[in-house]
Amino acid sequence: MVVRENFDNKLQELQVKMNTMSDLAASSLEKAFEAFKTKDVEIALKVIEEDEVVDDLEIEINHFIIWLIAKEQPVARDLRKIIGALKISSEIERIADFGVNIAKSTIKIGKSNSLVNITNLEKMKDISITMLQKGLQSFLNEDIALAREVGKLDDEVDHASDEAYKTITSYLQGHPEETDQLVQLLLINRYLERTADHITNIAESAAYLIKGQMYDLNS
Amino acid sequence: MVVRENFDNKLQELQVKMNTMSDLAASSLEKAFEAFKTKDVEIALKVIEEDEVVDDLEIEINHFIIWLIAKEQPVARDLRKIIGALKISSEIERIADFGVNIAKSTIKIGKSNSLVNITNLEKMKDISITMLQKGLQSFLNEDIALAREVGKLDDEVDHASDEAYKTITSYLQGHPEETDQLVQLLLINRYLERTADHITNIAESAAYLIKGQMYDLNS
Repeated sequence: MVVRENFDNKLQELQVKMNTMSDLAASSLEKAFEAFKTKDVEIALKVIEEDEVVDDLEIEINHFIIWLIAKEQPVARDLRKIIGALKISSEIERIADFGVNIAKSTIKIGKSNSLVNITNLEKMKDISITMLQKGLQSFLNEDIALAREVGKLDDEVDHASDEAYKTITSYLQGHPEETDQLVQLLLINRYLERTADHITNIAESAAYLIKGQMYDLNS
Repeated sequence: MVVRENFDNKLQELQVKMNTMSDLAASSLEKAFEAFKTKDVEIALKVIEEDEVVDDLEIEINHFIIWLIAKEQPVARDLRKIIGALKISSEIERIADFGVNIAKSTIKIGKSNSLVNITNLEKMKDISITMLQKGLQSFLNEDIALAREVGKLDDEVDHASDEAYKTITSYLQGHPEETDQLVQLLLINRYLERTADHITNIAESAAYLIKGQMYDLNS
């Protein structure tokens, strides 16, 4: 029993690291979007700088997992959980990168009059952050209902993204002088749509762990 | 010695699966680009359909790796190699997805007069395919020189991508009537730049395995 207890403690430690990483990724998206909305280059630069913490945490989780497998030699569900954590940590790292991408777009747009309000990009960002919290908890608490909710929210983001694409391109046709900013808005639309996809991958890893088979929540 | 031989055979089997997956991803990119250049919607649809094979192969590799860890309980370098293979298979799956993305853009562009020749996108695609071959071999053969070559080629793709971005946006300002196609070209530029990034991640996994520490070949 001591062995099992020890292993459970290590799993607990892993979960804490994953929660921290997920909070940092959510904060990266929030701050980057704030910078984007308020044209605040200082905040944007900070988002880029702070991404290193997430990168380092991913490496730390990687090392921890390899050490844990070597030391505890887990099998069956324990092993699947740890491998799931490994995959999810790389999804979270990528999600934080999208915050960096949005920050870089913000810097490119600079001080020109923001056109963000012609789009529904902020709604997409809000849904994504809700999805991230639900997605990670679906995995950590092995909650299939939460994983399914993530799949449904991803459909909402996809729908919003199609709308944003149409709005931005049709505005672009009438305002070629705004090309630089509108192209960045198109890219940010893409980043948010991809963010939601990566979070859906997290929910799929949860579903795989719980049900023992692959789910395609993206379709 | 029989145990070791058996394990090496399993590793060999894993490498064959990874080579197959990488060939399929390269073929997805090649075919998608051919469809894009020749405006061939039939080929584009085929690329989308065939992506399922790559997705299935990733799941197969995942299962194989979990089974291999549970059965052989590898440690140290063996374990690092297997975990590296797991991460690389998900990078390759994503690279094949970029073929699908290019195919979908091709369908959206339809029969309008192709503007691909105003860009250097084809060169970016060619470099990416070379990078993929070198990247996977750097991991399988534990060849650090190849991994470094991938990092250098990624710089070339980044440079070409910046150029393509400038060419397309400046053309867009003068030709708002071509917005739909030019936006797709901008997205394809982004897909190819991201493809090269994911291949660079493969080379970083190789470097990590060989040198035992993380390398950032992207910077």
